[in-house]
Amino acid sequence: MEDTGPKTVEVCFTPALFAAIGTETPYAVVVVDILRATTALCSAFSNGLKSVIPVATLEEARAYKTKGYLVAAERDGEILDFADYGNSPLEYQKADIQGKTLAYCTTNGTRAIDLAKGSDSLVIGGFVNLDVLREWLINRNLNVVVLCAGWKNQFALEDAVFAGALAERLLESGKFITHCDSVVAARGLWQEAKPNLLQYHVKASHRQRLIDIGQDESIPYCFTLNVCRALPGLRNGELIDFLVHE
Amino acid sequence: MEDTGPKTVEVCFTPALFAAIGTETPYAVVVVDILRATTALCSAFSNGLKSVIPVATLEEARAYKTKGYLVAAERDGEILDFADYGNSPLEYQKADIQGKTLAYCTTNGTRAIDLAKGSDSLVIGGFVNLDVLREWLINRNLNVVVLCAGWKNQFALEDAVFAGALAERLLESGKFITHCDSVVAARGLWQEAKPNLLQYHVKASHRQRLIDIGQDESIPYCFTLNVCRALPGLRNGELIDFLVHE
Repeated sequence: MEDTGPKTVEVCFTPALFAAIGTETPYAVVVVDILRATTALCSAFSNGLKSVIPVATLEEARAYKTKGYLVAAERDGEILDFADYGNSPLEYQKADIQGKTLAYCTTNGTRAIDLAKGSDSLVIGGFVNLDVLREWLINRNLNVVVLCAGWKNQFALEDAVFAGALAERLLESGKFITHCDSVVAARGLWQEAKPNLLQYHVKASHRQRLIDIGQDESIPYCFTLNVCRALPGLRNGELIDFLVHE
Repeated sequence: MEDTGPKTVEVCFTPALFAAIGTETPYAVVVVDILRATTALCSAFSNGLKSVIPVATLEEARAYKTKGYLVAAERDGEILDFADYGNSPLEYQKADIQGKTLAYCTTNGTRAIDLAKGSDSLVIGGFVNLDVLREWLINRNLNVVVLCAGWKNQFALEDAVFAGALAERLLESGKFITHCDSVVAARGLWQEAKPNLLQYHVKASHRQRLIDIGQDESIPYCFTLNVCRALPGLRNGELIDFLVHE
């Protein structure tokens, strides 16, 4: 008999809390690192990238470079000297990456992907592909955990706000329920932020990387809804676009 | 030269995130478990309790009982058979505990105290002693970390809302600053909750222990501001009332 009951949605504010999540299988994990890894991945796939090999260490990233791969590698937002790309979503809009494979190493995003790779489905989310993500999750009939990559294992505001936006859409579909306080909190933050998403983040946080919002032309893009038609997802250890290849 | 610069305030949403907090010393930790351990402690001290021995395991709690101590022990909100008290704050209002010492073992609260005992000062907070706590922290001139006990290492809404209430008071004093996204989020939740604190928690969460709000007569007390004149704090491994003994 097909399972048609409501599915659960949960939010995990940082990777440090993921191990304690007791979600029933089968479940999908949505990995979120709004500033900027998962936004960049959405951007790259919507510009025709074929696949991404998530890479955990800089050594591994260097090894892929010597093997001739395109490589994206950054630490604390800075592109590394041996790499072709960092994690600015705008780079990937302009880049000649159609049909290519990219080895991708990034501070928080790769670690979160690695942590959640044992889930039944792992997909990549951002404000830029919010409605694509919503559609896909509703159709899949899986429990959902939104895994915020955070900032060095700490709570990051922008990831939590996104989690609230996604959770709200899933709950309003009538096909999801929640028992999770983090979902309640994330929805509250989304309600507060949504009238002016970019300004909310500039005003709300004094953290340097968010003050830098004004200095980095890619940041407004990270807070723009539904500009990417792509759904990066994990298949056999690589990210592909589930809208194209699933 | 006396250090008169502003101090920082940070919020740690669960004990699982405490290790990654990089607060500069000297700092004070405020341990919070609104439902119900830290609320109960405030209630007990405001009814004249002399001291509390925080106990980590049930075996240890039993051992104190056989030595003749008063013992408080609960698991998942239920008082255990060998114990004198659980963690209902109302029990302690009625109890004959003046001048006595209590061995206290509770699900989340004791663990959080144990985790933070290396800080320069450890105090116990709840809505019930909010302004006492505020005054004391402002006078002490220490950096502050609000450590939410959470629920089995997961985010708990009521602890986060309290953290927002306390952080707001410290920031509005002009003597504190923050660089912490968790503080921004917690303040947002407090703003949303404060018009009707109890109702917010009933409506917001579907978690069973919060649905139980209507069934447990002690819960409204846990969301009542400033009804306890007590400030439990750690000294030589025991909690005493810093308003009386410091």
